[in-house]
Amino acid sequence: MPLKRDPHHQRDHHESAATEIDQLSEMLSQDQSKHARRLLKSMHPAKIASLLERLPREQRVAALHQIDARTEPKVLAQLSPALRTQLTWDLDADSDSSRDTGSDPDAGSGEEPETQLNLVLDALDQGKLKRIAKLFRKLHPARIAGLLESLPATERARVWDMVESERSAKVLRHLHEEVRRRLAAEMDLEHLVEAARGLEPDDLVDLIQDLPTATGRQILDAMDQRERERLQSMLSYPEDTAGGLMNMDQVAVRGNIGVGTLLRYLRLREELPPNTDKLFVIDRRHQYQGILRTERLLTARPEQSIAELMETDFEPVPADQSSDAVAQRFEEEDLSSAPVIDADGRLLGRITIDDVVDVIREQGARALTGMTGLDEETDMFAPVLASSRRRAVWLGINLITAFLAAWVIGLFEGTLEQVVALAVLMPIVASMGGIAGSQTLTLVIRGLATGQLGRSNTRILLLKEMGIGLLNGLLWALVVAALAILWFGNWTIGAIIAVAILLNLLCAALSGVAIPLLMSRLGIDPALAGSVVLTTVTDIVGFFAFLGLATLILL
Amino acid sequence: MPLKRDPHHQRDHHESAATEIDQLSEMLSQDQSKHARRLLKSMHPAKIASLLERLPREQRVAALHQIDARTEPKVLAQLSPALRTQLTWDLDADSDSSRDTGSDPDAGSGEEPETQLNLVLDALDQGKLKRIAKLFRKLHPARIAGLLESLPATERARVWDMVESERSAKVLRHLHEEVRRRLAAEMDLEHLVEAARGLEPDDLVDLIQDLPTATGRQILDAMDQRERERLQSMLSYPEDTAGGLMNMDQVAVRGNIGVGTLLRYLRLREELPPNTDKLFVIDRRHQYQGILRTERLLTARPEQSIAELMETDFEPVPADQSSDAVAQRFEEEDLSSAPVIDADGRLLGRITIDDVVDVIREQGARALTGMTGLDEETDMFAPVLASSRRRAVWLGINLITAFLAAWVIGLFEGTLEQVVALAVLMPIVASMGGIAGSQTLTLVIRGLATGQLGRSNTRILLLKEMGIGLLNGLLWALVVAALAILWFGNWTIGAIIAVAILLNLLCAALSGVAIPLLMSRLGIDPALAGSVVLTTVTDIVGFFAFLGLATLILL
Repeated sequence: MPLKRDPHHQRDHHESAATEIDQLSEMLSQDQSKHARRLLKSMHPAKIASLLERLPREQRVAALHQIDARTEPKVLAQLSPALRTQLTWDLDADSDSSRDTGSDPDAGSGEEPETQLNLVLDALDQGKLKRIAKLFRKLHPARIAGLLESLPATERARVWDMVESERSAKVLRHLHEEVRRRLAAEMDLEHLVEAARGLEPDDLVDLIQDLPTATGRQILDAMDQRERERLQSMLSYPEDTAGGLMNMDQVAVRGNIGVGTLLRYLRLREELPPNTDKLFVIDRRHQYQGILRTERLLTARPEQSIAELMETDFEPVPADQSSDAVAQRFEEEDLSSAPVIDADGRLLGRITIDDVVDVIREQGARALTGMTGLDEETDMFAPVLASSRRRAVWLGINLITAFLAAWVIGLFEGTLEQVVALAVLMPIVASMGGIAGSQTLTLVIRGLATGQLGRSNTRILLLKEMGIGLLNGLLWALVVAALAILWFGNWTIGAIIAVAILLNLLCAALSGVAIPLLMSRLGIDPALAGSVVLTTVTDIVGFFAFLGLATLILL
Repeated sequence: MPLKRDPHHQRDHHESAATEIDQLSEMLSQDQSKHARRLLKSMHPAKIASLLERLPREQRVAALHQIDARTEPKVLAQLSPALRTQLTWDLDADSDSSRDTGSDPDAGSGEEPETQLNLVLDALDQGKLKRIAKLFRKLHPARIAGLLESLPATERARVWDMVESERSAKVLRHLHEEVRRRLAAEMDLEHLVEAARGLEPDDLVDLIQDLPTATGRQILDAMDQRERERLQSMLSYPEDTAGGLMNMDQVAVRGNIGVGTLLRYLRLREELPPNTDKLFVIDRRHQYQGILRTERLLTARPEQSIAELMETDFEPVPADQSSDAVAQRFEEEDLSSAPVIDADGRLLGRITIDDVVDVIREQGARALTGMTGLDEETDMFAPVLASSRRRAVWLGINLITAFLAAWVIGLFEGTLEQVVALAVLMPIVASMGGIAGSQTLTLVIRGLATGQLGRSNTRILLLKEMGIGLLNGLLWALVVAALAILWFGNWTIGAIIAVAILLNLLCAALSGVAIPLLMSRLGIDPALAGSVVLTTVTDIVGFFAFLGLATLILL
């Protein structure tokens, strides 16, 4: 095998190499595949082809491994047919043989399962990048996207180069926003435009919204005029509205034609866009009239008219409806697609279930990550510095609340000096309140999100939560008091902690209901900051009740 | 209006009423609508009809308000046509007039928006239950389900009676599991079976799985044999597998027929099940062969054969695949439906996107609520006692961890006695570690859930998280140290808290990665218990590092 594993790169050497071919040859023989890749990337395909011809046979394969999938066909086209055949044959043999032995040289532990991720990492490790290209050709674009997301930034860029041009659009479409933005930022404009052409308009709109304005502009400029106008009208709607979700691939028909005519027209089209469970009926002025289900069409007689078969009571989606509301409607009514109209009732496009599923998935992720201030962190391998900065903000907010709690404790320094057992027990009071409060908070946040909690039933919910707080407060107050008495042999401390826990759990129930309601009234997302505010309250109330009672009674 | 609002029920009176008609009349005139409802519920429809005939005109309407929607048609059928017309006319007038004035008598604050929930609550308040029935007739079953979920248990049962028989199945289908189970438990068997007949097999299977075994048995017995066998085969798959998700309404065709024949057959069927974006092709022995997209069918020429048009590379879903895996595939490949096969490759049924959306929604909810031990609490208005019990378990687990932390503090009682400032500052160290750790934990849990985190990239993630821990640790250690020095004027305490915070943030990064990985290796769901274990670790390490260092240095 041409490449020996040698972890210590000898950087200083290749300065002395006179010509590019010598440089390349030296890099390859010294396992400096990274440098080789960079060098090859800077060359024209024809130039690479001429270099390849002059390299010894085994180095040719090594060099080819370092050429990205989008340049490879252009290089191969410049080679003589004989050399081309030999080279692809060598490459195949090389990839296969190393794949068979792929598990023993580096993987270390023999137990490790042969996952696709391991295959990719092994191939990266050994510089056999074409093996990745080969694997990718067999995988679904969504799976490739998943693998890319599982890789740290440098490895991701190298692997990304192994995705063929015609598939890179589909892979981009399946990537998380943040990862997509980062990869797209690294692509050169030519490839980006090529990939953009392969995207569905709605995904392309998402991508353009994620890119720097100038890059988005350039992509738009590269489209033909009709496509550009379409995209611009879609870009005019915010991302989180129906207009931002919609696609423009709907099949719209006029009501006055017959089933036979329509079927002939569809047959001419040959293909329908995915998720076409209904066609949309419009009039002469493009006004939305109703829907025609394809299943209805399949079971209709050719002489029936569209107007006869269409359903006019299907409520279209206004373009400015929030995507959360759209998701709720799709879910409640089990829709696969729905028409989108503008304020004048004109048909603009359609929303399909696949985009709604993404919205629902994101809602779930937002609820989970929002609670820890990770709202935007969708890339597991974002650069350390970027991640640190994002998380630091949340830690800073938390620090303020922690100092508030410390300040409350500080008020009772004198008491703590005299009865140090209080310092030992006080975190218990705060912690129980925090947990009970988050339980209520979670329920209320969910109720608000699903719209089940309105002004009219909050009083009932509050009463219920206070009831639960009372029951659990009594139960755990007794348990904690008993344990505290056993530990410190002091009945008064037991009584004090019992009262403090009961008070804190009641206050936790109250805050768990009141805080999210108040926040949502003020236009703040309770899922994002609710738990910090809540634990601040339960900490402060817990410490204050416990230490305050102790000061009153013990001193 | 017949019913005057009188909040003080005069319960003792109606004992004296001799006959049912007197009882009823008295109850109605004294606004004891609850008693009237109960009395009417116990009577045969014919009996109620005869009572109605004898009541004065205005009491008739009041009585009719209290009859549930499922009994009403039977009662009306027993009345003379003239009386029937008059009664429905009166009822309409009554409902409308009270609806118009609905906002002023009780609502109190004029600002309150006229939501459907408010309408329902007002109607309940005034005993005008038929107004609810009228509202419900205009609403989508999913919306009715949402309203039901927004109501406390007693009100929910009264409102549920206003849902017409033929729609109750559809409403049941849209209810959350827990609420559905509770309502179904209250229905009498006859109505339950009637409702069950209106459910799709997959929803019915869910319902039966939620009901007590005996009740489920009775529902099965009421079905005809073919339906029963079908249901039993579906019941044999666990709820969280493809088999538990699937429905049996697929359209399966043989490959050897032509498009023309198929279209004629479909036209005879007249209707296709919802979400039919593909038909499934099977052979003589019911073996799955491939799929035929309906859009392909629409654009095909009648003389083509199914075998020619079908796609054989569509991977069917094995019945024992987990529902999470099914959801991931639907999401990645943007599917609307997929065939389910058994181990022998026979076509069993199909999974549709609407059920997958439910799975995805539940995953999101589980991630959010699991963290606070609310895994199963889907009913916002579950009885206080049931909710208390469920949440008490989580509080108990938390108490153990809180006592562990207290025990660590207790080890340093001597130190705390001498330097009480430590007691003031120690919650800050623990709290910063807890927040930083949850950030990492959340990311890892999501990575595990999406399958992006495998053994091969954990080391890289760990390094990245440790890097973030180091950066944020240094930053916040300095900030906290500065604040502590300002507060207590003691440089040593500042240095100690700085080191403790740095240590705790590094340990938080390590635990945030290690704990969920270890738990998932042990088969425990990290989303459920991960955060408790994590905060236990960060509390203990935080207190131990801070107080331990202080003991070494200050004493």
